[in-house]
Amino acid sequence: MHVHQMISTHPRVRGETNGALIRCIEECYSCAQACTSCADACLGEEKVTSLAQCIRLNLDCADICNITGRIATRRTGSDEEMIRRMLDACAAACRLCAEECEKHAEMHEHCRICGEACRRCMSACEEAGRSTKH
Amino acid sequence: MHVHQMISTHPRVRGETNGALIRCIEECYSCAQACTSCADACLGEEKVTSLAQCIRLNLDCADICNITGRIATRRTGSDEEMIRRMLDACAAACRLCAEECEKHAEMHEHCRICGEACRRCMSACEEAGRSTKH
Amino acid sequence: MHVHQMISTHPRVRGETNGALIRCIEECYSCAQACTSCADACLGEEKVTSLAQCIRLNLDCADICNITGRIATRRTGSDEEMIRRMLDACAAACRLCAEECEKHAEMHEHCRICGEACRRCMSACEEAGRSTKH
Amino acid sequence: MHVHQMISTHPRVRGETNGALIRCIEECYSCAQACTSCADACLGEEKVTSLAQCIRLNLDCADICNITGRIATRRTGSDEEMIRRMLDACAAACRLCAEECEKHAEMHEHCRICGEACRRCMSACEEAGRSTKH
Repeated sequence: MHVHQMISTHPRVRGETNGALIRCIEECYSCAQACTSCADACLGEEKVTSLAQCIRLNLDCADICNITGRIATRRTGSDEEMIRRMLDACAAACRLCAEECEKHAEMHEHCRICGEACRRCMSACEEAGRSTKH
Repeated sequence: MHVHQMISTHPRVRGETNGALIRCIEECYSCAQACTSCADACLGEEKVTSLAQCIRLNLDCADICNITGRIATRRTGSDEEMIRRMLDACAAACRLCAEECEKHAEMHEHCRICGEACRRCMSACEEAGRSTKH
Repeated sequence: MHVHQMISTHPRVRGETNGALIRCIEECYSCAQACTSCADACLGEEKVTSLAQCIRLNLDCADICNITGRIATRRTGSDEEMIRRMLDACAAACRLCAEECEKHAEMHEHCRICGEACRRCMSACEEAGRSTKH
Repeated sequence: MHVHQMISTHPRVRGETNGALIRCIEECYSCAQACTSCADACLGEEKVTSLAQCIRLNLDCADICNITGRIATRRTGSDEEMIRRMLDACAAACRLCAEECEKHAEMHEHCRICGEACRRCMSACEEAGRSTKH
């Protein structure tokens, strides 16, 4: 990912990048991929029924991380309210998904790794949220 | 759209559909299309610079409506917290986008129609949010 | 959906709308919702294992329909090659998903309805593809 | 990104990962972010009108890369036809977007970096396409 390079050349940013927001964007895209992968891996397991709620939360979390990564990437205009709301929603989605993945972490390595990605993304969203508050 | 038909045959729903949520899903998909269309129409206008903030909010709103429509569609498991948070975020995105579109409604018919779609989606999200609260 | 209203007010369209493309956009958004709904309904069924391939194709088809609806909505600039390629890919995704859904149509009403949505979207993409060819 | 870790623990993969496909997934997510960023940076430039086609292609390319990354991530079931078609469409989107970005590369650093991301993603999609062919 070249998030820092891209954001730092934005005409409204002009080099004054927000490190917490850049890390958050990276974690959002990374977590979106991990959740998409975990949903599909769960779907391929023999005992799918016990993983239905995990798949559901993985799909929700992947969608929210994806969109939060996009919205946090956009810097034109002043849309701080929208960014903060999505960072909040994304941190919540990551927490819910991490809690569910952690229940299956001993059985399924993909759930363990995905749970970690969700925790990292949750922290990054919280920190970015603080950094955009006045 | 066949939202009611699809949701009513879901194994966890078994005919007991929530009318407010179904209307909300329809408005989310409809508003996502209207915002995508308005962003592109604004981009095709001669005076794009004055429409930059409108395009920005259109893109954010299209992304959020899209994902809210998906998350509200999923009924497996108990993810009410996630649905409520996204309905809140989506209502806010629609309000911000409607306010901006309305500034250009006299000049650009696409902004007028899109502003109306955003207002309808905002109301539908608010009503669906109330209907999922206990 | 207000696809016709939105597209007809686009500065590059100025009233000369392509009916086949408008119908296709509507079917893409509708099919994206039906596939998202069918994936989740399948996930809520008792015998999920036998529906794993159906869920997989539903998720792929929902993603492709969503993006095809967006790309076909954008009219600024000349991106006909991209639109035609996505209409082709989307028709293929709808065909694959319909074929799988039809296997479960007698057992699951949501698969029957979703299969029909996929067939309609497939036809609409094919017709729109022909209408954009010179 | 933890693409390799996630894919290698998938029940249908069991360690036998396809290196070309993993690299492609990483490039798809990275290019999706770069294109979203470039679209927004172009929108923030003074001479937006001359960048309208670049923004349009950025948005299309971001959407297609996003979805291709998701579809290539899913390994359950046998959906090789869908993966190959999307890799083809994604390579084409990246080529079109790179060609447009390169026209503005001297003026705008974000277009130069984005053009490079598109070229890398195009090559990765082509190589992954060859690796999934029998």
